[in-house]
Amino acid sequence: MRIQGKHYQTIWLKENDPKIVQVIDQRKLPFRFEVMDLKTIEDAFFAIKEMVVRGAPLIGITAAYGMYLALLKLSDKNLTQYIKQKAEYLKSARPTAVNLAFAVDKMLELTLKGKNDSLLVDKVFQKAHSLKESEIQFSEKIGDFGLEIIENIYRKKKRVVNILTHCNAGWLACIDWGTATAPIYKAHLKGIPVHVWVDETRPRNQGARLTAFELGEEGIPHTIIPDNTGGHLMQHGKVDLVIVGSDRTTASGDVANKIGTYLKALAANDNNIPFYAALPSSTIDWKINDGIAEIPIEERDGSEVSEIEGWVGSTIQKVHLTPENSPVANYGFDITPSRLVTGLITERGICPATKNDIIKLFPEKFDV
Amino acid sequence: MRIQGKHYQTIWLKENDPKIVQVIDQRKLPFRFEVMDLKTIEDAFFAIKEMVVRGAPLIGITAAYGMYLALLKLSDKNLTQYIKQKAEYLKSARPTAVNLAFAVDKMLELTLKGKNDSLLVDKVFQKAHSLKESEIQFSEKIGDFGLEIIENIYRKKKRVVNILTHCNAGWLACIDWGTATAPIYKAHLKGIPVHVWVDETRPRNQGARLTAFELGEEGIPHTIIPDNTGGHLMQHGKVDLVIVGSDRTTASGDVANKIGTYLKALAANDNNIPFYAALPSSTIDWKINDGIAEIPIEERDGSEVSEIEGWVGSTIQKVHLTPENSPVANYGFDITPSRLVTGLITERGICPATKNDIIKLFPEKFDV
Repeated sequence: MRIQGKHYQTIWLKENDPKIVQVIDQRKLPFRFEVMDLKTIEDAFFAIKEMVVRGAPLIGITAAYGMYLALLKLSDKNLTQYIKQKAEYLKSARPTAVNLAFAVDKMLELTLKGKNDSLLVDKVFQKAHSLKESEIQFSEKIGDFGLEIIENIYRKKKRVVNILTHCNAGWLACIDWGTATAPIYKAHLKGIPVHVWVDETRPRNQGARLTAFELGEEGIPHTIIPDNTGGHLMQHGKVDLVIVGSDRTTASGDVANKIGTYLKALAANDNNIPFYAALPSSTIDWKINDGIAEIPIEERDGSEVSEIEGWVGSTIQKVHLTPENSPVANYGFDITPSRLVTGLITERGICPATKNDIIKLFPEKFDV
Repeated sequence: MRIQGKHYQTIWLKENDPKIVQVIDQRKLPFRFEVMDLKTIEDAFFAIKEMVVRGAPLIGITAAYGMYLALLKLSDKNLTQYIKQKAEYLKSARPTAVNLAFAVDKMLELTLKGKNDSLLVDKVFQKAHSLKESEIQFSEKIGDFGLEIIENIYRKKKRVVNILTHCNAGWLACIDWGTATAPIYKAHLKGIPVHVWVDETRPRNQGARLTAFELGEEGIPHTIIPDNTGGHLMQHGKVDLVIVGSDRTTASGDVANKIGTYLKALAANDNNIPFYAALPSSTIDWKINDGIAEIPIEERDGSEVSEIEGWVGSTIQKVHLTPENSPVANYGFDITPSRLVTGLITERGICPATKNDIIKLFPEKFDV
């Protein structure tokens, strides 16, 4: 999508130097637009861990390119041992999004299988590239399917469709288009009037910083709200639809997403408002069924809660928010049980959040 | 309660000058402890409107003293017209907390009734003082009744009792003890081990700034969490009890409280966790029954969302958080329907949040 009118993706190869991967440094948005060079797997690890890049699909693709970067630096080491160790290292960067482990495992498998292949580096590179292209297609498909939901509401209500989203499941979390935002962009392109309630998304404010930024750059009407606000808006008929992303989805339809998503799902359910999770199948963890018991929830540094960054004039300043001796806790995600999810918007279509319905869309993923 | 070991209330008369009312400037906490002089009703209006003082009980008492300050400045004006106009003015400062209108109306009634009484100023002053003393007693009683709930949980679980609270319904919102915090202080004094999950409470961060501060000064173990976190904690058995305050309660038990309270009530309900609202009867609006339809929800300035204040070293700095062209919305309260409220903790005891049960505790307030 666009930044200041120019088309970007979130990750690309440096022009004239395919040994350098470049990403938008999302820690700096919307204050500054900066590009970071990733030259080693350590750089990729840093980018994922420190949230230079974030969002399940983008984490996966960055990891895929990270494995490629590792291979470039192989020299005379033992390939098998070297790449297995690098794979474990990279997977440890963040625990919740399953895309990370999936992408790394795919790249590892390819590498081990082709370890005597003189074209291995090329093939690994092509694999990372094709995973990336797949994610873009997934997002576009999610956009097309999700568009129908928005269109149906518009046909019925004949006024601006108000959509609430939590965190950033936008193109910045993916490669292009986004997951939760893809249907919104598609609706906007088709001339359907939409307005997005953007949850601020404490503690890192991905909503206020990233979602508001990307919607603004695309000219989509939106309003930033504190995370506390959605329930009130729903009680008063000001939300027609909730769409969120997912960092990991169980085979039974439980959705791990940014902390606070569960609270919005409860409110949507209490007010009969449809609640959809938009996700590429790359975020589905086919082997697990109980999100609350089985998905590890990342705990991040407390400074993300006790400190915040903002503008003072044109400079960036970090300020401390809490009493000096008060401890803080910082959980990254929560689980929205499938019973609160109206449907999953995937690249193969929309389905209810049940195992039976997920099987119908992705039969090859199950031993049935 | 205590600040640096010294006992304070939130509002008092200046020593040796009963024509000046003093309050803690709560806009500055926890960064700085400053006292503000209120010399006129305009000062009281400013203090309420700009949230120098906040919390339903404290707003009511500040308004009562505001009416007294107005009377001090009467000089040769027409009393009836003058005081009626001042009463309307003061009531317009904030719309949601009913205590404001109640306190002003009580003072107005007394003033009009005694307009030829040479001791009027004294009587009005005494009335403000007695309202204040009542609020302190109400808080203590709420503490004693709420203590039983905490004790029962402790007896059953035989470990630290984890209590979640939203916003600040502490002594800073009242005169002393607090509403939601009163049972917590009483439990702590009695040696029952408690730990409080303190919702940050965006946008004004009354949890992170005020509740954490006052709990810290009393030595109560607590942890500040983003507002998004409570649902996750409840899913994982880390919350035994939710206690919040109320800015206005309907006769049927709907609770208007700080925006986001409704979301925590939904999560408590979904996880079978008791959810109590602690409130003096001065916050019950006896005439209304439908909170969502009948309680006006204050919309405040967007800058409270787009900007935030914090420490940089020892200085206070305001930073801007959102993209320049992104609008924000700032609703102050939401309504928790009575069906989600386990009980109301009042100065006369605990009752289920239903009209029938509220009538039993306060029969004189109803024409039955």
